[in-house]
Amino acid sequence: MRRPTIKDVAERAKVSLKTVSRVINNEPSVMQGTRARVLHAIAELDYEPDPSARNLRSATPFVIGLVYDNPNPYHIIGVQNGVLAACRETGFDLQIHPCDSSSPLLADELGEWARRSRLAGLVLTAPMSESAELVSALAARGVKLVRIIAATEDPRDGQPCVYVDDRDAAYEITEHLIQLGHQRIGFLWGGLAHRSSSERYLGYERALKDYGITLDKHLVVNGDYTFDDGFRGARRLLALRDPPTAIFGSNDEIAAGVLAAAKSAGMNVPYDLSIAGFEDSPFSKQSWPALTTAKQATEDIARHAARLLISGLRQDAYEDNPIVVHNQGFVPQLVVRGSTAPMRPRAPNAEN
Amino acid sequence: MRRPTIKDVAERAKVSLKTVSRVINNEPSVMQGTRARVLHAIAELDYEPDPSARNLRSATPFVIGLVYDNPNPYHIIGVQNGVLAACRETGFDLQIHPCDSSSPLLADELGEWARRSRLAGLVLTAPMSESAELVSALAARGVKLVRIIAATEDPRDGQPCVYVDDRDAAYEITEHLIQLGHQRIGFLWGGLAHRSSSERYLGYERALKDYGITLDKHLVVNGDYTFDDGFRGARRLLALRDPPTAIFGSNDEIAAGVLAAAKSAGMNVPYDLSIAGFEDSPFSKQSWPALTTAKQATEDIARHAARLLISGLRQDAYEDNPIVVHNQGFVPQLVVRGSTAPMRPRAPNAEN
Repeated sequence: MRRPTIKDVAERAKVSLKTVSRVINNEPSVMQGTRARVLHAIAELDYEPDPSARNLRSATPFVIGLVYDNPNPYHIIGVQNGVLAACRETGFDLQIHPCDSSSPLLADELGEWARRSRLAGLVLTAPMSESAELVSALAARGVKLVRIIAATEDPRDGQPCVYVDDRDAAYEITEHLIQLGHQRIGFLWGGLAHRSSSERYLGYERALKDYGITLDKHLVVNGDYTFDDGFRGARRLLALRDPPTAIFGSNDEIAAGVLAAAKSAGMNVPYDLSIAGFEDSPFSKQSWPALTTAKQATEDIARHAARLLISGLRQDAYEDNPIVVHNQGFVPQLVVRGSTAPMRPRAPNAEN
Repeated sequence: MRRPTIKDVAERAKVSLKTVSRVINNEPSVMQGTRARVLHAIAELDYEPDPSARNLRSATPFVIGLVYDNPNPYHIIGVQNGVLAACRETGFDLQIHPCDSSSPLLADELGEWARRSRLAGLVLTAPMSESAELVSALAARGVKLVRIIAATEDPRDGQPCVYVDDRDAAYEITEHLIQLGHQRIGFLWGGLAHRSSSERYLGYERALKDYGITLDKHLVVNGDYTFDDGFRGARRLLALRDPPTAIFGSNDEIAAGVLAAAKSAGMNVPYDLSIAGFEDSPFSKQSWPALTTAKQATEDIARHAARLLISGLRQDAYEDNPIVVHNQGFVPQLVVRGSTAPMRPRAPNAEN
C-alpha cells in the first residue's frame, strides 16, 4: 500500500496543503473546526509527516523582528500594525527593537539579538535600511532582512526592499503651493540621516526650478522629524525680514510644530501662512485647520515589506498570492486640506 | 580542593554575581571587556557552571510579551517604551501582541502565543488586565503575568500589579474646573470596558458632589478613547439648549476631538469653552491651546510593571534594587495649560 502523503490528508480534510502544513507544525491561525478535521484525516490515514517538514519548524522559528529609530509615535504604530497584519496572515509573531541608528555597534547588536531570540528575519526601517554598510554587515552575519527605503526606483541590488518615492510626492506638494500663488516657500528638513528627508528636499528643489523660482537658502532650515524642530524652524523663518508665505514641513510632526509656532505668533492659518506636512498621520486630520499633506500608506508599505520577508523565509506562505514576493514601490499622494490657501499679500505688521 | 563557585569567579573578575551569571547564560548587555574578564576567570579557575543554572536558560527564555487593545498610538508607544526600558536593563526582548479584548477566545489565543513563542511572561494592559476571568484562565495555563490596572489601591489578590489611581486625578481635574467657576461640566466616557474610564467618571462625580453641584445626566456622553468619539460627543453637548461651559474628555484623544469640534463651531478655546483631557500625551502639549490634563507617567508605570514581572521570573534580575519587586501605585498629577480658563457668562449666539 502506498504511504499516505500530505496531499491525501488535504484532500480528505478538504483543505489546502498549506493548512495541513500549519496544523502539523502546530501553527496558530487555523480555525478550531478546520484543525479538528485535519487531525481526524491524519488519524484515519495514519499519515506520518515527513521528518524534514518537521525540521523546518525548528529551523525556521516563526518570529520576525522590527527595527526602528524614529521619534514619531504615529509613524511607528503604523509600521508596527502593517508588519503585524502580515504576521497574522502567516502565523508569525513580532519582536520590536527601537535602536540608536548612529551606534557604531549596531550590526553587532542586531545580529546578537537575531541570534539569541532565534528571529527568522528582520524588517529594517529608515535610516538603518539606508545604510549599505549595516545591510551588508547583517547579511554577512546570515541575518535575513527586508528594507523599507526612500527611493525613486528599485535599487535592483538583489536585496528585497520596498521603496517609497518621497521625491515625487514632495514635488506635488510644492507644486500645489506654487499654484496657490506662493513664491517664498520655506522648507524644514527632517534629519540628514533619513534619505526620505533629502528626497523630499529634492522634490521641493525640483518643483521650484521647474516653475522658475529661485531657491532662497534662508528659507531652508535643518532639523529632525520632530514637533520641536518644526516649532523652532518656523520661528526662525517667521522672524526673517522677508518671511515665507508658505512652509513645507518634511513630515506632519514638523508641520504640527509650524502650526503651533504660527498660532503662538497670532497668525491665522492658512490666510497668513500656508502649511503643508507629509505622511497623513492622524494628527494631520485632527489639527485645526487640518493639514495638507502627502498620504503615505505607512501600514500598506510595512505590510508589503513584512510579506516580502516572510515569503523569502517560507516559500509556502503566499503560494496563493505570488504578487507579494516582489519588490514594490509606493508613491505618496497629495491630500489637500484646510492648512493651505491662496497667497495673499502680507499686510505690514500683520497681527490678526 | 574545593570546587570553584560562581562567587570565586565574580571575585576574580571583580564583577557582580549577576554579571557572571549573564556571561554564563550568554545574555546580552554585558560590556565586551567585562565579558572577556569573566571568561578568563572561568578559564583560570576551571569553573563549571551548575547545570541547574544552565537549565534556567532554557527553562526561562528571555522574551516577554506585551498585550494591548488601545486605539491611542501615543499611549501604546509610551507603554512599549517603558516595558522596553525594563527589558534593556535585564537582557530581555519584547514581543508585542495587539488583540481584541472582546474576543471570547482570548485566553486560548494568548496562552497559545506564550507557548509557541516560549515567552517567559506577559505584561497585560487594560482592559485585559481588568478581566478576572482572563487573568485566572491565563494563570490556569501557567502563564506568568503582571497587570497594569486602574484602581485606587492594591487589590491584594496575590497577583503582581501596578495600579493607577485615575479616580483621584479625575477628581483634581474636575475640582480645577469648578474652582474656575464652571458649574456645567460635560464628561465624555472612554469606553465601558476600561476601568480607567469608570474610575475617572467616579472622580468627576465625586468632585461635583463634594462641591454641591447636581450631576446633569445630559452632560455625560458614552464613547471610546478616540478622537472621533470626542468630536461627536462634544458636538452633542454643544447642541444642548443649555450647553456645558467646560468639557472633561476622559483622555487626551477625546479632548483633541472636543477641541476640533469647538473650533469647527467657531468657538474660542478656552474663553467660550474650557477643555481638559487626561494622560499628558504629546498631543496635549502640541495642540493650540495646549491641553489641561493629568500627567500619567505612562512610561514609568509600564517600566515598573515589566520590572515586577521580570523580578518574578529571575530572582537575580534586581538583586541590587529590591524596591522594584513590589506592587506599586501611581497617581496622575494635574497639569494646567491654556485650554482651561475662568468661566464667563455665555453671550447669546456667541460667534467670535
